[in-house]
Amino acid sequence: MNYDGLFARAIDDLKVEGNYRVFAELERRRGAFPRAKRLVGSKLADVTVWCSNDYLGMGQHPDVLAAMHAALDRAGAGAGGTRNISGNTVFHAELEHELADLHGKEAALLFTSGYVANWAALGTLAGKLPGCVVLSDAKNHASMIEGIRHSRVEKRIWAHNDLDDLERQLAIIPRDRPKIVAFESVYSMDGDISPIAEICELAEHFGALTYLDEVHAVGLYGPRGGGVAEARGLAHRIDVIEGTLGKAYGIMGGYIAASAAAVDFVRSFASGFIFTTALPPAIAAGALAAVRHLKSSDVERRQQQTRVEELRRRLDVVGLPHMQNDSHIVPVLVGHPVKCRYVADLLLDEFGIYIQPINHPTVPKGTERLRITPSPVHSEDDLDHLVAALSELWSRCSLERRSIAAE
Amino acid sequence: MNYDGLFARAIDDLKVEGNYRVFAELERRRGAFPRAKRLVGSKLADVTVWCSNDYLGMGQHPDVLAAMHAALDRAGAGAGGTRNISGNTVFHAELEHELADLHGKEAALLFTSGYVANWAALGTLAGKLPGCVVLSDAKNHASMIEGIRHSRVEKRIWAHNDLDDLERQLAIIPRDRPKIVAFESVYSMDGDISPIAEICELAEHFGALTYLDEVHAVGLYGPRGGGVAEARGLAHRIDVIEGTLGKAYGIMGGYIAASAAAVDFVRSFASGFIFTTALPPAIAAGALAAVRHLKSSDVERRQQQTRVEELRRRLDVVGLPHMQNDSHIVPVLVGHPVKCRYVADLLLDEFGIYIQPINHPTVPKGTERLRITPSPVHSEDDLDHLVAALSELWSRCSLERRSIAAE
Repeated sequence: MNYDGLFARAIDDLKVEGNYRVFAELERRRGAFPRAKRLVGSKLADVTVWCSNDYLGMGQHPDVLAAMHAALDRAGAGAGGTRNISGNTVFHAELEHELADLHGKEAALLFTSGYVANWAALGTLAGKLPGCVVLSDAKNHASMIEGIRHSRVEKRIWAHNDLDDLERQLAIIPRDRPKIVAFESVYSMDGDISPIAEICELAEHFGALTYLDEVHAVGLYGPRGGGVAEARGLAHRIDVIEGTLGKAYGIMGGYIAASAAAVDFVRSFASGFIFTTALPPAIAAGALAAVRHLKSSDVERRQQQTRVEELRRRLDVVGLPHMQNDSHIVPVLVGHPVKCRYVADLLLDEFGIYIQPINHPTVPKGTERLRITPSPVHSEDDLDHLVAALSELWSRCSLERRSIAAE
Repeated sequence: MNYDGLFARAIDDLKVEGNYRVFAELERRRGAFPRAKRLVGSKLADVTVWCSNDYLGMGQHPDVLAAMHAALDRAGAGAGGTRNISGNTVFHAELEHELADLHGKEAALLFTSGYVANWAALGTLAGKLPGCVVLSDAKNHASMIEGIRHSRVEKRIWAHNDLDDLERQLAIIPRDRPKIVAFESVYSMDGDISPIAEICELAEHFGALTYLDEVHAVGLYGPRGGGVAEARGLAHRIDVIEGTLGKAYGIMGGYIAASAAAVDFVRSFASGFIFTTALPPAIAAGALAAVRHLKSSDVERRQQQTRVEELRRRLDVVGLPHMQNDSHIVPVLVGHPVKCRYVADLLLDEFGIYIQPINHPTVPKGTERLRITPSPVHSEDDLDHLVAALSELWSRCSLERRSIAAE
């Protein structure tokens, strides 16, 4: 067997399809976000990052960094073990307490990432509830899909944000079978937001447990950053809220918040929680500082919303097509894989603007896009530069504009 | 449906079985390892940790902490995105280069944890090689088992470290089917080491790819800390070496090292790699410092081996039964779940010694144990205190001793 040959052939296929990924090599500069250095050959070039999921720039917030430095000095680099075997620290306990409070839940549980949180929690809840059926929104994230797949229970996919379809599918499942409705609040690639209240109503009517992924919403929505469910006063109607510490909170890690019984259940049975080294104390300490800051400060959220509105307005002025939604994510449509990558390359090389192109299979063919995430760390000048660059490249690449009058 | 009721009943069952886990709440003190503070009620008690997987105390090494502080100052808290979307930094690239070199491989790939490394890499390799069969050692770690399970390929379990059984099973698989022999070097709970050379011979004979988990060996064995495969001059015969940055290297994260083609294959297809936020730059920088230090310094490894030998000698003097093995893990047998937990509780409460009891299902019933991991940060006095405490509790609990003469 020539294994390397098999691997190389699969990679070649990806290249032919245009789906081979090359990572840009970056170094963000603390204190200068969204500015970063990019390695080009052996040289460093200046870039402005417009596609970070550090949505509020909390990754350079002085409170966050001070907490991390202090925890490093106090407790050292790593946790030194799993949560059960010597790796459970006061830092973890304090953060879980804070996250439970953030979502108005009895308890919370940390995971090494949001991916692992979804995979392990959903996999365990579905897999261990006898006869469970999972009703999964068609656009759910890979981590939820893999968690459901791992549980090997019956999965029913309902059309994205389609209440009628969800109702139809709930109605045909026997009442006495446990069922989980799994969905997100903000969908990452389109930026659309789900009808949470209506989904809760259906779930309550049919006796389903609700599992809501708020990774693109925690820190960003709600008076305390508790997510869209908090913003809409619905957190108490969601059974399990899943969030991340790696996006708006600026570091890494994931969690669920739920009833004490649900959390203890996942804590006790989830392989992906039990058999892995705990997050480093410094990560937990930094996340705690970020969560606490965004619980009391609304400044960053308001600044972000202002920037998002401003970007949309300026894109409209020059007629660049972007998807309307109620979130902070601004997808600018290119609609062609080669042009999408080409525009992104020119943005990077000629204008020092970094926006990773989003192509199939992450989004459907024909909807290839530049996914822009404006943040409080972007200035008015940054906006000017971005929109001017996009507009120039739109002309150069003969991409379609839309007239404002036509809307 | 009363979901909380279902969760609570499952938890009650665990409690009845004696398998419910309560986490000790700790805070290690940087500069004072293995000393830690333990929260008891609202008070802090002093404890000495004897069960950490920070095997060499690298979690408090000045070079590691300096690198982490510097990276925090330079690049901020988190990576801000996945490796593909704005989260790929010079810190990640440098660490992967170093890890590839450590194992004499063309390339390496980072994951958020060793668990995810095994799950994602093994799941992807097995799942994407057409018609693949995985031959998995019976004592493989949960993360490997879950990765294989996730791939849904044919799995054949061979008896632990049993070359005859492995050969028998390899022989009946058609030659033209891809096959992966998945095993570990140091098995965590018994501390025994696998016959790597003989396994390689069989794999080569039958055309199987070898996948070796060295998480309890990297940093600890081999002239540069490259693991048991390096120590035995066998790294070049292993196709994929998997390691962790969360044990001997003292922080968190996992990786594989392999051919450029194999790494690119996993990088391109593994959902658990692609769709997750990259490790924070500070974690990568700290791990780089730890790997580099242990590449050139043998001091910590030799000190650890001395401590391990010394502990074994003293346990023999007082006749405490411990499992013989060629590694740094010293399992002291209690052989009874309730007594095992009881001894651990008394060690903690009366002697300030923290050793998490290891019960079923982590180990087979009747082999319940205290798994002790001596390290360079334990002193002669610590050893005296530990062995005296164990000996006293052995008498108090009427546990069996073995006479040295009987060996």
